[in-house]
Amino acid sequence: MHKFKSLQTFYWKEETFYILDQRLLPHRVEYLPCKNHHDVIAAICTLAVRGAPAIGIAAAFAMALCGFQSLPECSSYERLKARLAEASQELLASRPTAVNLAWALQRIEKWLSMNDHLTPREIAAGLLEEAEKIFKEDVEHNRMIGKNGSALVPEGASILTHCNAGSLATGGFGTALGVIRAAAQEGKNIHVYIDETRPLLQGARLSSFEMFYENIPATLIIDSCAAYLMKKGQVDLIVVGADRIAGNGDCANKIGTYALAVLASYHKIPFYIAAPLSTIDLELSSGDKIIIEERSSEEITSFAGNSVAPENTSVFNPAFDVTPAGLITALVTEKGIVHKPDQEKLYKLCTKV
Amino acid sequence: MHKFKSLQTFYWKEETFYILDQRLLPHRVEYLPCKNHHDVIAAICTLAVRGAPAIGIAAAFAMALCGFQSLPECSSYERLKARLAEASQELLASRPTAVNLAWALQRIEKWLSMNDHLTPREIAAGLLEEAEKIFKEDVEHNRMIGKNGSALVPEGASILTHCNAGSLATGGFGTALGVIRAAAQEGKNIHVYIDETRPLLQGARLSSFEMFYENIPATLIIDSCAAYLMKKGQVDLIVVGADRIAGNGDCANKIGTYALAVLASYHKIPFYIAAPLSTIDLELSSGDKIIIEERSSEEITSFAGNSVAPENTSVFNPAFDVTPAGLITALVTEKGIVHKPDQEKLYKLCTKV
Repeated sequence: MHKFKSLQTFYWKEETFYILDQRLLPHRVEYLPCKNHHDVIAAICTLAVRGAPAIGIAAAFAMALCGFQSLPECSSYERLKARLAEASQELLASRPTAVNLAWALQRIEKWLSMNDHLTPREIAAGLLEEAEKIFKEDVEHNRMIGKNGSALVPEGASILTHCNAGSLATGGFGTALGVIRAAAQEGKNIHVYIDETRPLLQGARLSSFEMFYENIPATLIIDSCAAYLMKKGQVDLIVVGADRIAGNGDCANKIGTYALAVLASYHKIPFYIAAPLSTIDLELSSGDKIIIEERSSEEITSFAGNSVAPENTSVFNPAFDVTPAGLITALVTEKGIVHKPDQEKLYKLCTKV
Repeated sequence: MHKFKSLQTFYWKEETFYILDQRLLPHRVEYLPCKNHHDVIAAICTLAVRGAPAIGIAAAFAMALCGFQSLPECSSYERLKARLAEASQELLASRPTAVNLAWALQRIEKWLSMNDHLTPREIAAGLLEEAEKIFKEDVEHNRMIGKNGSALVPEGASILTHCNAGSLATGGFGTALGVIRAAAQEGKNIHVYIDETRPLLQGARLSSFEMFYENIPATLIIDSCAAYLMKKGQVDLIVVGADRIAGNGDCANKIGTYALAVLASYHKIPFYIAAPLSTIDLELSSGDKIIIEERSSEEITSFAGNSVAPENTSVFNPAFDVTPAGLITALVTEKGIVHKPDQEKLYKLCTKV
């Protein structure tokens, strides 16, 4: 599988948006052709595409798809705008926790309202251009996050990560894996421990795949083995991504992140969040207000089509948890590192030019 | 599946020892017929039977099987004793962490050395009797553990458990699930959260099954969700079993237990270990000296024959971890509750008549 030279999360071709179907990884590399925004919503809901920044990018392209698709029926800016507003609402509802989705849709909306003088066809083309800009910027931001975060990685470090905050979760390069990638590219001898990340095994399937692909030494563990490694002194730092960061620095991320942060604090291991500014939601005063998506019980009671629990087992399956800012050593962003993030520091970070 | 009226972990019939094949649970109830001690070793190694007390019982019956099997070739006590000593060594090597295996074999050895006046046929019959005694005593001890531990369970408690320390891990009734069972039988309105327990899902497959079977309300979660529940105040206490308890109170148990103990301490939630005295290894001064079994990488990289990670993924798969005594609120045994276990208290407990 390491034969593929560059693994694109997305591409656009002839009014179709192609999404790398992450459900099939690491065994098959297949792209899901999305002809309209409903196809993109389905891809988001079924996790064919996942990862907060990646979802944001996909939503922007979905708006462009909607623009092109609506041309035959929308002869005026107003009609097209109404159609696009509907699509935006539908997209917004597809997954509730990651804020990059809302962020990307707001940016598209802002672009729309600033371009009310354009024809519908110019609007559709402009939306595509804006989506491509969001995509490109995300990769640039991730490279900056990587560069900034690498300063926190000592030579020879053993790094623990959870879920997949890699190329596949973003436009490319990744956030948490971006930090790891940058450290490796700078020639640091690092070793990565990857939590498999139940229930959907994004660590085993995706992060292992990304590390293997780039020859970065990595070892896969079950999630509950992380504490054991910390106790044995085998983890020098932890770095993960984020799906939404509240104004006070509390971070929502994949379920299991909060446990790691508590365990890191107990073992005096630095705990870093790597995320672009688009993940920060200044309007939310604290993490308690972040909506946590609960997903189907089948994600836990069955495995590759095999049932692993008694029928009718009651299940609680939140997809995310919230790590309080107090447990976060530093937040790594494209604009720099914020040590011990809090309201004041995040406000400054987001408003500085 | 709740049609089966009583679910025996083991039974003996016509010189054959039948082991409930736990790999097939919760979907199929099938017994593995063991004709000789090699069959039992295979069952232990492949986890057809697992759980520290259950392994001890199985080993005792394996010795009885060896006794009967060896009769045609061993006409003297000495020859039979030598044959049994070999079998004992082979059994001892089958799994390194749980001490009940060694405990049961030592007990059998002691019985043997006290009965050197018997004929080989009488020895074989005596071994079977001793195995049945160990089996019966284990169930009695578990009922005592349950009764003692239930005093720690408040009315309406929400209880978290990990792995399976239930009927299936023992001769019957269970240790940690014995505490839960006893509390439920006393009419306390309890609710159980069950960690699925990767990699082999003993929580999802076995503990869920046991709770469902007895109509004790239970909810299945992924292991890394436990911290989230603790943070939300939804866990009143944690109770788990143990595979080996060192003389100072450090406990080896299923991987993930140590993480729960640290998280419990952080959230100020009582953390209990329920185990019979046969799990205590006074000769081991601390948990650091407990050998931790590492198991096959395939337990993590594949599921029901489906690969879930890139080929050649490097894996670290310890089956157990060690929780320091300092993180244990109390140890629940058949002889009573030991609060804040330490060397002195454990020595007293094990030597009092």
